[in-house]
Amino acid sequence: MDFNGNTLSFQEILLAQQRIKDLIHHTPLLHSELIDQIAGIRIYFKCENFQKIGAFKFRGASHVFSLLTDEQASKGLCTHSSGNHAQAVAKIAQMKKIPAYIVMPNQAPKIKKEAVLDYGAQVILCEPNLKAREEGIAKVIEQYGAHFIHPYEDPRVIAGQGTAIVEALDTLASENIDVDAVMAPVGGGGLMAGTCIATKGWFRQYQKKEIFIYGAEPTMANDAQRSLALGIHQKSHTSGQPNTICDGLLTTLGTLNYEILSEMLSGIYDSNDDEILKAMSLIWTRMKILIEPSSATVLSAVLSPKFKDEIKNKKIKTMVLILSGGNVDIVQMGSKLSMIS
Amino acid sequence: MDFNGNTLSFQEILLAQQRIKDLIHHTPLLHSELIDQIAGIRIYFKCENFQKIGAFKFRGASHVFSLLTDEQASKGLCTHSSGNHAQAVAKIAQMKKIPAYIVMPNQAPKIKKEAVLDYGAQVILCEPNLKAREEGIAKVIEQYGAHFIHPYEDPRVIAGQGTAIVEALDTLASENIDVDAVMAPVGGGGLMAGTCIATKGWFRQYQKKEIFIYGAEPTMANDAQRSLALGIHQKSHTSGQPNTICDGLLTTLGTLNYEILSEMLSGIYDSNDDEILKAMSLIWTRMKILIEPSSATVLSAVLSPKFKDEIKNKKIKTMVLILSGGNVDIVQMGSKLSMIS
Repeated sequence: MDFNGNTLSFQEILLAQQRIKDLIHHTPLLHSELIDQIAGIRIYFKCENFQKIGAFKFRGASHVFSLLTDEQASKGLCTHSSGNHAQAVAKIAQMKKIPAYIVMPNQAPKIKKEAVLDYGAQVILCEPNLKAREEGIAKVIEQYGAHFIHPYEDPRVIAGQGTAIVEALDTLASENIDVDAVMAPVGGGGLMAGTCIATKGWFRQYQKKEIFIYGAEPTMANDAQRSLALGIHQKSHTSGQPNTICDGLLTTLGTLNYEILSEMLSGIYDSNDDEILKAMSLIWTRMKILIEPSSATVLSAVLSPKFKDEIKNKKIKTMVLILSGGNVDIVQMGSKLSMIS
Repeated sequence: MDFNGNTLSFQEILLAQQRIKDLIHHTPLLHSELIDQIAGIRIYFKCENFQKIGAFKFRGASHVFSLLTDEQASKGLCTHSSGNHAQAVAKIAQMKKIPAYIVMPNQAPKIKKEAVLDYGAQVILCEPNLKAREEGIAKVIEQYGAHFIHPYEDPRVIAGQGTAIVEALDTLASENIDVDAVMAPVGGGGLMAGTCIATKGWFRQYQKKEIFIYGAEPTMANDAQRSLALGIHQKSHTSGQPNTICDGLLTTLGTLNYEILSEMLSGIYDSNDDEILKAMSLIWTRMKILIEPSSATVLSAVLSPKFKDEIKNKKIKTMVLILSGGNVDIVQMGSKLSMIS
């Protein structure tokens, strides 16, 4: 795992934290007594929905920016994404007054194109397939010399995402609160891989105790869970384009991230969309914060009967759950919630 | 304005703050760069949606509790309300393990009855009219000796509500941030009256400068605005039961609160429901926090063309807006928002 001359290590994540600290928001850690009662453990939510652009993705993108020379940066940034990563790249470019080029499938919803255009980025539409996307990016790099930032399969991005859990663990340690386990959602795996390396490293360095690290996935896009169960990287979903409300978790797990997760994760827990919607609604109504469905996978997993056994067996009392983002279509969610409630 | 042997003064609000500080949440003060850009001024939101029971009402109810003798308290608390005040009275009673009796119209939505029952209170249903409500309360007082807490027309309640703005002004002063004006929603007027007395008192005591205090109302329930314009207390709405989405602001202004507002307010600004929904949606999606429509009246008012003139004329640069609560039906809001967007 070579990275800019260094290994992708806990030390590298601490360096990333220093590099991005004036660019990002230090997000709050919230808890809810009522949710603790329901879960039977103490839960601290790391609220990346309050991060710039409303998601953790801004950490990784701003970390890559922080490593560029002025000359590299002046040519701009590019990526392929229609989601939070696209907004993250567009936002850091806007803040630093450099160009951003976002390759997006031509069928992407208008609201996602507009979000990126609002940050001053240029949108390049392509056919909705891998080949067109890669050609689109290659063309942008050739034409503008823009620097490509992969959404998750890049050690610099993974290091940036890993800073979220470091902030959370530092804050709790300063309040003398012990943590037994952490959990994050798994899509492409950048956040989860960064969380693994950061958490293992943090405990090795500061507290000698066993720490459990979990992932959460929607059942309809549980490729990481299947990969870990089989010990073979599953590079596609069981049913083509997965049918889940968790639009941030449709990507399959990256190769680098598969390796890291295989080595460090204690388990991945899945939930169906109704369970995820109920957990989302619980967080909205009880904590008064807005999160997107992908974020709710973690609480949904913790509340599942399967995980109750894990809590008991591993004697888990206190957990940190990462709420990955809050970019959500309220009208759509209202309508989905009306169908399950 | 006699109150427990004292006048309802700024000093009394400071005492209330001491009395309730271990009962309530010290709520955060949030801001959004994007909303500042839209408004053209710096806005700090005092987030009472994060208060216990999800609304400022818990301050007033817990203040009344804090003034009772053990013997008085042991007989329990009572009130008439189907909204946030009912939950506030039920919650403080639950925390202190004393009974709570809530008189509620028999047509109140199931969700509101359940919210109060969840806090362990007893619900007494009555016909939906003033006479039945007063008889219901009289009966509870006679039968149980429970202590009555009026939703807004009580100096002890007003003093409790006034503590929210004191917290906000203290926090901003500690960061050397100057405030030019404050604004709160107006229903029965308890929060607004407390905000008036606290704000005037705070500036008299700590900073010699002119401070402007504003109220916000939905156009369909603008009785306070009409009262102030006419100089005569309007005790009813223009069209019977007002048709507005702001379910927390349906009550007409109390007599005591009318007097305080007449003396201290610089103006009340109204918005129609579509404007309020748009402001609510802006806060949900940009700040990632959940607020109820009543809370959105303040941002809606600040963004109105009428208030732009006030900002210019009074040279307002920085304001504190009180977000009164976050108890909202998401499905209903999703459906309302789909109609305006």
